[in-house]
Amino acid sequence: MKLLTYAINKKELTGVLNREGTFVYPLSAAGMEYRTMKEVIREIGPSELELLDHISGLPPYEVSNAAPLEDIKIMAPIPVPDQDIICLGINYLAHAEESARFKKEAFSKPDQAVYFSKRVNRATDPGDGIPSHKELTSQLDYEAELAVILKKDAKDVALEDVEDYIFGYTIMNDVSAREVQTAHRQWYFGKSLDGFTPLGPWIVTADSVEFPPKLKIQSWVNGELRQDSNTDQFIHGIAEVVSELSRGMTLKAGTIIATGTPAGVGMGFDPPRFLKPGDVVECMIEGIGTLKNPVVE
Amino acid sequence: MKLLTYAINKKELTGVLNREGTFVYPLSAAGMEYRTMKEVIREIGPSELELLDHISGLPPYEVSNAAPLEDIKIMAPIPVPDQDIICLGINYLAHAEESARFKKEAFSKPDQAVYFSKRVNRATDPGDGIPSHKELTSQLDYEAELAVILKKDAKDVALEDVEDYIFGYTIMNDVSAREVQTAHRQWYFGKSLDGFTPLGPWIVTADSVEFPPKLKIQSWVNGELRQDSNTDQFIHGIAEVVSELSRGMTLKAGTIIATGTPAGVGMGFDPPRFLKPGDVVECMIEGIGTLKNPVVE
Repeated sequence: MKLLTYAINKKELTGVLNREGTFVYPLSAAGMEYRTMKEVIREIGPSELELLDHISGLPPYEVSNAAPLEDIKIMAPIPVPDQDIICLGINYLAHAEESARFKKEAFSKPDQAVYFSKRVNRATDPGDGIPSHKELTSQLDYEAELAVILKKDAKDVALEDVEDYIFGYTIMNDVSAREVQTAHRQWYFGKSLDGFTPLGPWIVTADSVEFPPKLKIQSWVNGELRQDSNTDQFIHGIAEVVSELSRGMTLKAGTIIATGTPAGVGMGFDPPRFLKPGDVVECMIEGIGTLKNPVVE
Repeated sequence: MKLLTYAINKKELTGVLNREGTFVYPLSAAGMEYRTMKEVIREIGPSELELLDHISGLPPYEVSNAAPLEDIKIMAPIPVPDQDIICLGINYLAHAEESARFKKEAFSKPDQAVYFSKRVNRATDPGDGIPSHKELTSQLDYEAELAVILKKDAKDVALEDVEDYIFGYTIMNDVSAREVQTAHRQWYFGKSLDGFTPLGPWIVTADSVEFPPKLKIQSWVNGELRQDSNTDQFIHGIAEVVSELSRGMTLKAGTIIATGTPAGVGMGFDPPRFLKPGDVVECMIEGIGTLKNPVVE
């Protein structure tokens, strides 16, 4: 089941995509009063999720305020995350190699997961522009990633229990300014520029995805395939990551964890192929969908 | 003027410290309805700040609900920050040297500021325990830092305008688990464990501090002086940092920026002198006060 945040006449709503992927049904059509996806994540129960799943199978003429996709603006599913997004660096082996090559560092398979964070004042909606920040960077890069969303506070979670903490999955483009990321040693600033977090197009609930997820992940720039891998290639899997972090940090409900990107980003090419205004980036994950954003001045 | 968040019978209040530093006067005594310090920061105006300054000079018997310090629990001034705290690494030269020595890296003066972030679900109140996280770390360390709090959204701020964006200053102990910080390459996880952000004891408003701040900064462990420097020793000053970050990121009102720590942290000694349960850490900044926390199991 796919849950989305969307706008009609600039009013923000939450809804479920119908099974054909042609209409969105507002949660209010199921008698649910959640105002935001953050409320849905924290508060929705299993029986309500079942009801939504049922409703998503109904034809649009049986659902009040059903809206065809072409009449709505799909927004980032969580437009304003409560906290920074927790990201994994270097979590696919082939990307570890291309990254070390670009930075002229010795390559070594990371024993320990690399965690950093990405500040997000406002996630970039599907279809909206990624600002090029040309005064700051000439090395603008894309990174298709599977993002995991937690549904309840996680502390000291055993490996085998992690699945119970997952609300669902979406796609994140971990846009990066490479020379900013490198010059400041820690990656935070080069990952956190305004507009650097396209997110969406919707959340696929955990019950619709095998755990751990084994999903094809790809990206294209201007229609040319750049990344092509599978989330079964994670060096550090979702269970390991959530369990490890939760040993020291309470991960609050609504926490977003981006699981790293496979090989094929711009800095991986020789010479590198960075983004410029006018380029269009598409990030696809099997069973979720495609997150498409142009780069703008 | 010193503004604080405090609790009486577990009710959270905001107030101003009187000039003698003996009583707190609730903002409600000045007819102000702000429920939290975050609201104060975003909304208070210059005339209200003047009124509070005037009231802080009155004797306690003239102020309704004045409470002696010994009757209140002083809380972290911003108990639940809206976003991760932005931190500077390596921002005093002598600390850059001790840090490189500990990590057995070549020492070089950083040309570029090192930015990372620290997740804070709940800041640790003055006097409350810093959890030792002994299952995760045997290298628990302290870092006294000046923390800057912004009063309005900052984007593309010129160096000479940064002062206008500062609401005030407080003290942060940037508690760190050194082997966690190092093992994961990026520092985020080792800086973000639960309870690793003691903050306080209050906010000194910007009008009370010369800009840029030239303040003695010290720390003690069990009464022994460990850090002893001055904020005039920053490698990257507050104006430079806010201006640089704001070129790419919109820094929202309420943003907390911790400006790095001077030499004398535990990892700087040979052999290192890390914290253990029972130790008491005091961080002092001239004109602000002292933030004191014990380490607990």
